[in-house]
Amino acid sequence: MTIEPRTLKGFRDYGPEEQSFREAAFAKIRIVFERFGFLPLSTPALEYKEILMGKYGEDEKLMYSFKDNGERDVALRYDLTVPLARYVAQNQNQLVLPFKRYQIAPVWRADNPQKGRLREFYQCDVDTVGTESPLADAEVMACLCKTLEALGIDDYELKINDRRIVSDFLRSLALDAKQEVEVLRAIDKLEKIGTTEVNKLLEEKGLGSIVKKLEGFLADNSLTPELSALMDQVKALGIAKVIFDKSMVRGLDYYTSTVFEIKLRDKPGFGSIAGGGRYDSLVDQFSENSLPAVGGSIGIDRLFDAMRELDLIKFENPLKVLVTNWGEEFLPTNLQIVTQLREAGVNTEFYYQATPKLDKQLKYAEKKGIPYVVIIGPDELASEAAQVKNLPKRSQEAVPMGQLVDYLKSN
Amino acid sequence: MTIEPRTLKGFRDYGPEEQSFREAAFAKIRIVFERFGFLPLSTPALEYKEILMGKYGEDEKLMYSFKDNGERDVALRYDLTVPLARYVAQNQNQLVLPFKRYQIAPVWRADNPQKGRLREFYQCDVDTVGTESPLADAEVMACLCKTLEALGIDDYELKINDRRIVSDFLRSLALDAKQEVEVLRAIDKLEKIGTTEVNKLLEEKGLGSIVKKLEGFLADNSLTPELSALMDQVKALGIAKVIFDKSMVRGLDYYTSTVFEIKLRDKPGFGSIAGGGRYDSLVDQFSENSLPAVGGSIGIDRLFDAMRELDLIKFENPLKVLVTNWGEEFLPTNLQIVTQLREAGVNTEFYYQATPKLDKQLKYAEKKGIPYVVIIGPDELASEAAQVKNLPKRSQEAVPMGQLVDYLKSN
Repeated sequence: MTIEPRTLKGFRDYGPEEQSFREAAFAKIRIVFERFGFLPLSTPALEYKEILMGKYGEDEKLMYSFKDNGERDVALRYDLTVPLARYVAQNQNQLVLPFKRYQIAPVWRADNPQKGRLREFYQCDVDTVGTESPLADAEVMACLCKTLEALGIDDYELKINDRRIVSDFLRSLALDAKQEVEVLRAIDKLEKIGTTEVNKLLEEKGLGSIVKKLEGFLADNSLTPELSALMDQVKALGIAKVIFDKSMVRGLDYYTSTVFEIKLRDKPGFGSIAGGGRYDSLVDQFSENSLPAVGGSIGIDRLFDAMRELDLIKFENPLKVLVTNWGEEFLPTNLQIVTQLREAGVNTEFYYQATPKLDKQLKYAEKKGIPYVVIIGPDELASEAAQVKNLPKRSQEAVPMGQLVDYLKSN
Repeated sequence: MTIEPRTLKGFRDYGPEEQSFREAAFAKIRIVFERFGFLPLSTPALEYKEILMGKYGEDEKLMYSFKDNGERDVALRYDLTVPLARYVAQNQNQLVLPFKRYQIAPVWRADNPQKGRLREFYQCDVDTVGTESPLADAEVMACLCKTLEALGIDDYELKINDRRIVSDFLRSLALDAKQEVEVLRAIDKLEKIGTTEVNKLLEEKGLGSIVKKLEGFLADNSLTPELSALMDQVKALGIAKVIFDKSMVRGLDYYTSTVFEIKLRDKPGFGSIAGGGRYDSLVDQFSENSLPAVGGSIGIDRLFDAMRELDLIKFENPLKVLVTNWGEEFLPTNLQIVTQLREAGVNTEFYYQATPKLDKQLKYAEKKGIPYVVIIGPDELASEAAQVKNLPKRSQEAVPMGQLVDYLKSN
């Protein structure tokens, strides 16, 4: 009996074309991250559950947690920020502060796949830990914007807010802590569900009395001096389209002041493709010393979806040459050519099944999108010149054996 | 109360220096894999447990398995080969065969960390599915050897065997299936624990009668015609040091004929740093169609340990320039320089804390191994020339503002 080959809901494979594109994009992202002085960090997929719990708000129930073989409570990481906070607290005596790191890695959330959300998805994060300087905030934002530009996305906008503006307003309402969180979450939903629905939500929670006050608060668009300076710094770092958005507060519980998100101006339907903020108290949960921090994250799967819509996804086939197989007699010559091509840096496949049927071998190259086919059979061995087919151009040329490698390398 | 910041046993972080090296090594590995015509595939970390069970032999108990929120039996992948078999079976109608893929990704095994084994470790795999051609076997082996060479490791040896030679011997003993597996596993342990211990093991299992026959079998070193041809092909692909080793059978249950492993000749203590073999029946477990396959894997953590011993680990600091911070008045000029340097491809950090104390800023650059420090303070702004310090050379130079980017780019 065979076992049905299938993946779990919300999990998926990425085949060669898609994964080639993803790897190339990750490489571009790394380059920009390092331009801004961030270096890579790798943390484990599994953490003690207590490290992750209590940081994410109501969605925390989506965490993959279980008991391991040693009866330890463990969980798959839910984001890359909390593991970073754990790392910095654990290694604070060895680290040079401010500590600037990036991480590109999968995270796991058992979200409802019907919403089109994957349960395993990649995040690309940059964070700076150990400084209160708003320049660190500006650089995180600029870095993520420049990363999008490096991927060909120019038509984005960066929305900035300071949660303390909202906190001051909340304080003026004289609510209890739980109610404050309710209002914060309601504001967070404004853009997604609209004013009417948010007001309804507040009334359901017994907070109908603040609806009018909230409207008044949101209508006043005056900047604080700190936010004004921060926006200037972001602009000085080469980011043109920066917008103050008082209603943008981000869902996660751990942000303390600056919050931001990046959206595509042309495709608002995709929601934010990057976001982040300052979290000055997160590391404190693991350490006696206070370590203020700021960071941001690109949701790479949503970004790639957007790029697909914008026609920015191009598969550049890494395969260049197929050397045909004419059986045992020709094997030494052909394997030698294959090896020489590879040594010269040419990505080369050898056809595995010995067959005089050229058609079959050409078809294989065509299906795989391999542009060049090298033929060294009986005639070619006698004349000491290989036949080289260029499939996209439908052309063919005789190339003397001694020039074959150079010919294919330079073409 | 703070939560103790710690990682699980057998799990570890990789800090910026180590991870920079790892990323660079992964990039080199990818290049060689693509040279040989393998393209990347990505499969999920979590699979249905039934997909993974029954393929790995006695060590299967080390699998991380649990029930997810939807009460599904799931498991973290134990290797990259079984998920590949699942993928190929699932997508066989769309794939061009033979299908050649690579995957570089972590796997999880709850092994005893006292043995120095990590519970989360990376594998780098190449596999070819859909051909019985021994050329595919030869290419997998050559590809992994060339990968080691690309990482600076030349002093390795490739051991080859054919499990069918051992199977024929086992058949001649007329044992039952369970006993055959016992003998196979005993042979697998020969190199690690020696003949005396293996004989003891066989006696314990009630197989003392075969000890003499096994000795006789191992003493005869004659090659089969198939193995002889395979070794010639590997050599034709540029691999010099190929050895036939009848006692090398590899632990995993799914191999059917060719098995191989690569060891460092200088450091036998590290065991095999790569290995693999042909598994013609694995995909059958997920499919009605037979899809023969061959593949191999580099255990990257063991490899890096070996490279460290061989002094092949070099951290090349990606950071190049620190621009100093002289406070608000100088911010526009300095941020402009920072931005220009980055646009020109120079990895540049800006010092976040405004301070006229140059010493503190220089110390930061030194600690982080940043070679160049750019100073644009009051004097420099007046003279329109930045001071550029080269910390490793302990030199300093005045560079006109207009030439600064070119100067740092070309240095």
